[in-house]
Amino acid sequence: MTWINNRWYVAAWDSEVDRAPIARTICGEPIVLYRKLDRTAVALRDACPHRLLPLSMGYKEGDSLRCRYHGLLIGPDGAAQEMPIKAEAVPKGICVQRYPIVERHRFVWVWIGDPALADPATVPDFWPCSAPGWTFDGGYNHIACDFRLVIDNLMDLSHETYVHQGSIGQIEITETPIETSVSDGEVTVSRWMPGIEPPPFWRDALRADGPVDRWQICRFLEPSSVLIDVGVAPVACGATLEQHDQGVRGFVIDAMTPESEGTTHYFWGMARNFDIHDAGFTARFKAQQGHVFDEDVEVLEAQQRSIAANPDLKLRGYSVDQGGVRARQMIQRSIAAEAAR
Amino acid sequence: MTWINNRWYVAAWDSEVDRAPIARTICGEPIVLYRKLDRTAVALRDACPHRLLPLSMGYKEGDSLRCRYHGLLIGPDGAAQEMPIKAEAVPKGICVQRYPIVERHRFVWVWIGDPALADPATVPDFWPCSAPGWTFDGGYNHIACDFRLVIDNLMDLSHETYVHQGSIGQIEITETPIETSVSDGEVTVSRWMPGIEPPPFWRDALRADGPVDRWQICRFLEPSSVLIDVGVAPVACGATLEQHDQGVRGFVIDAMTPESEGTTHYFWGMARNFDIHDAGFTARFKAQQGHVFDEDVEVLEAQQRSIAANPDLKLRGYSVDQGGVRARQMIQRSIAAEAAR
Amino acid sequence: MTWINNRWYVAAWDSEVDRAPIARTICGEPIVLYRKLDRTAVALRDACPHRLLPLSMGYKEGDSLRCRYHGLLIGPDGAAQEMPIKAEAVPKGICVQRYPIVERHRFVWVWIGDPALADPATVPDFWPCSAPGWTFDGGYNHIACDFRLVIDNLMDLSHETYVHQGSIGQIEITETPIETSVSDGEVTVSRWMPGIEPPPFWRDALRADGPVDRWQICRFLEPSSVLIDVGVAPVACGATLEQHDQGVRGFVIDAMTPESEGTTHYFWGMARNFDIHDAGFTARFKAQQGHVFDEDVEVLEAQQRSIAANPDLKLRGYSVDQGGVRARQMIQRSIAAEAAR
Repeated sequence: MTWINNRWYVAAWDSEVDRAPIARTICGEPIVLYRKLDRTAVALRDACPHRLLPLSMGYKEGDSLRCRYHGLLIGPDGAAQEMPIKAEAVPKGICVQRYPIVERHRFVWVWIGDPALADPATVPDFWPCSAPGWTFDGGYNHIACDFRLVIDNLMDLSHETYVHQGSIGQIEITETPIETSVSDGEVTVSRWMPGIEPPPFWRDALRADGPVDRWQICRFLEPSSVLIDVGVAPVACGATLEQHDQGVRGFVIDAMTPESEGTTHYFWGMARNFDIHDAGFTARFKAQQGHVFDEDVEVLEAQQRSIAANPDLKLRGYSVDQGGVRARQMIQRSIAAEAAR
Repeated sequence: MTWINNRWYVAAWDSEVDRAPIARTICGEPIVLYRKLDRTAVALRDACPHRLLPLSMGYKEGDSLRCRYHGLLIGPDGAAQEMPIKAEAVPKGICVQRYPIVERHRFVWVWIGDPALADPATVPDFWPCSAPGWTFDGGYNHIACDFRLVIDNLMDLSHETYVHQGSIGQIEITETPIETSVSDGEVTVSRWMPGIEPPPFWRDALRADGPVDRWQICRFLEPSSVLIDVGVAPVACGATLEQHDQGVRGFVIDAMTPESEGTTHYFWGMARNFDIHDAGFTARFKAQQGHVFDEDVEVLEAQQRSIAANPDLKLRGYSVDQGGVRARQMIQRSIAAEAAR
Repeated sequence: MTWINNRWYVAAWDSEVDRAPIARTICGEPIVLYRKLDRTAVALRDACPHRLLPLSMGYKEGDSLRCRYHGLLIGPDGAAQEMPIKAEAVPKGICVQRYPIVERHRFVWVWIGDPALADPATVPDFWPCSAPGWTFDGGYNHIACDFRLVIDNLMDLSHETYVHQGSIGQIEITETPIETSVSDGEVTVSRWMPGIEPPPFWRDALRADGPVDRWQICRFLEPSSVLIDVGVAPVACGATLEQHDQGVRGFVIDAMTPESEGTTHYFWGMARNFDIHDAGFTARFKAQQGHVFDEDVEVLEAQQRSIAANPDLKLRGYSVDQGGVRARQMIQRSIAAEAAR
């Protein structure tokens, strides 16, 4: 097993889940997602308890799903409500697995492991995605690679220079030292660039000239997210690594949900606290971010194939990889702890 | 093993087999089929005994097949007739497996198991496909599912309501009780609907108004066929479940031949005893039936994938599934009996 | 294992390898090939020692390759020259495997096994591909079959009659007796046709009428090549099987390099000692030869699939197969000898 079970995972963007059922495999489990009439979301095992046809192929009836094969009716709690022969009483215990589900920070989160442990308070804190004064949008990619390769990628922005040579790559980033720290369920890699000339993107965002302090803080959150705090503030503001809400600030949001051992749902986006009502800016940025992540997908899928084609070789961790190495160690310890219970 | 070996299986429609060889895998065995000059059909292992090139890629010479690779000539009895070097005598014992073959009821049947047991008298009795006063036509689908899923499907017509919602589905069918009976090598599921108003299809076939008795009798025949006796007779005729040849009658013919553990050759058609010289009716009905079976294929292949994706879940048998459950038990017992010999 | 490791294998045509890196898997090993500024060719394991991204996706810098992921710089000797953070010293031992490489007879050869054994003097002697007074050109096919099936094919030209029925097949060839001999690392199958009327191709090449002696000498060279010496000489010249350079002569060149257990790189061509400055003849012949080999590919891939589909059947060796049978025995003995060391 390469992932932790007893955690919340992003299953979908809030906008993806609607009245009509959709199918998505999360951590190896086929799941059907839909909304009830009151708009709350439901997650059930995507297999009719009768003959296993995916319920996502079925018909919505009120808040229930009718199987397309023999018409078994399943309620949003997973329990059968009608048998194929309607006149028959429903025997006790005919049901599908229901997954705990929470909608928060623009995402629909599900809990694949032991439902008794599913505490909504432990949903990762993606606060910039839903805080007042911030706006957030993004997209989705399916990637044919282990989700941990995406975490490695995001915890080491030095790759921008080469992978994104044609887009956002800048040689300066690899020349700034990083600091890595580990706390409970988190790994943080920080770059603080004091008193520099801001690059065009940030000068435009700031709408002002002059030297700035710039930061890039990659934060891995268990089980499989990376939030990257980026921005600049005029030097005069006195921003610090600990407190830097003075200038313009954004968060690159990355949630990597394992689909299977070798495939990943990648939910990405950008939250920001400037120009938050400029829908044109949001759309342009999302398009650009999508293009950049396509470059990552090409590299990540090639890396996954190369790992399979070179079974005698091992991934190596150098100094740039501290963040990813620590994140993998943290995941591994949590998997071992689950196994030990 | 999911199928019985020592039985006759439909390998092809009679119309599919011609002078030119065709390849088809039956119960895991690659087979080449062709007709001799006297039009009798031949079934041989589809691999040259020399270097295993499929004989179906070869050249016909009279009643023999010449391998396209080195020219070994194989007779219709499977024995080599000429070596790659023509001047060389053919050593004893160079041959391919020949399969017992029978052409009956518009189908070409082959016997995969022990040829000593191949008695043509045991070909399943598809009499409506060849009886005087009847006409028969149909088609073929390749389905990526276990052949038993197709049997389940056909032995429980309650699925028509949902799978065929857009075509032939009618809610009334699920509201009529069924009776299931088992006899030697057969499982029968009967629906008798006395004194009802006929649906449009049957009223047109009967060319008369007024109440009818209607029947739907699904009969599973070992190893893997389902014949569905359907029709209506005016109430005045006094038709019974045992004797109902008074009105208009048809047989939905279904022969499911395993290709491999997870794929099936599906031969289907309709035999009928009315309007038997109306070729336009035949063609229209075949087109409609093909459309209906496409709906089944979509569901069956999704079911097969879902079974693989949910290895912790089992198919359940409810009351509607009696026929399929009994048919599977019968197949299982026959497989066990073969293994015990 | 189906191939010998400690031998030279053709990795590419000389024309395929240029400044830009190309990827090719040889005997199961992913390899990147490119040329240095001095035009000598380099072969490295196609996986960055850091995170295994294929180096063939990287950027050329002088004679080195910079990984497209994090910018590790690898020299043509396989050693790292710069770390992702350029300021960091390169720790000892960061390198990729470098493969011995030789360019000879228009091909680039690599050595996959123990580099200490890689003696350039043991490159198979394809002398007609580079001798004065000769010209040579050809092409490449990827074939989804075991490389030994291609050797079988080439060591028995009797297949021409059937596989190439539409192109070069001639029934006469199967009617001439062959002689097979084995020497160190070689198997030879010879056909000598004295005093015959030459076929049109050879009469045109000879530019003369009258009876000729004709030869076809298939020579297997370990580990996986077949050179076919073909030609005609006027009877008056007194050519012999041992000495026959009097008339017009060509060599069909075939190098079969295993990509994996079930796939093969097939490098083929024609060397000849007549009309050597006629570029139009070269192009026409190459086009025809490509068409003929497409017929082989169709048969060879069908044979490979049929072997997998008929696991109960074995390849048989008849008299025509002596050459292939001996070549396979030789390969098998060499593999066993390698394993015993």
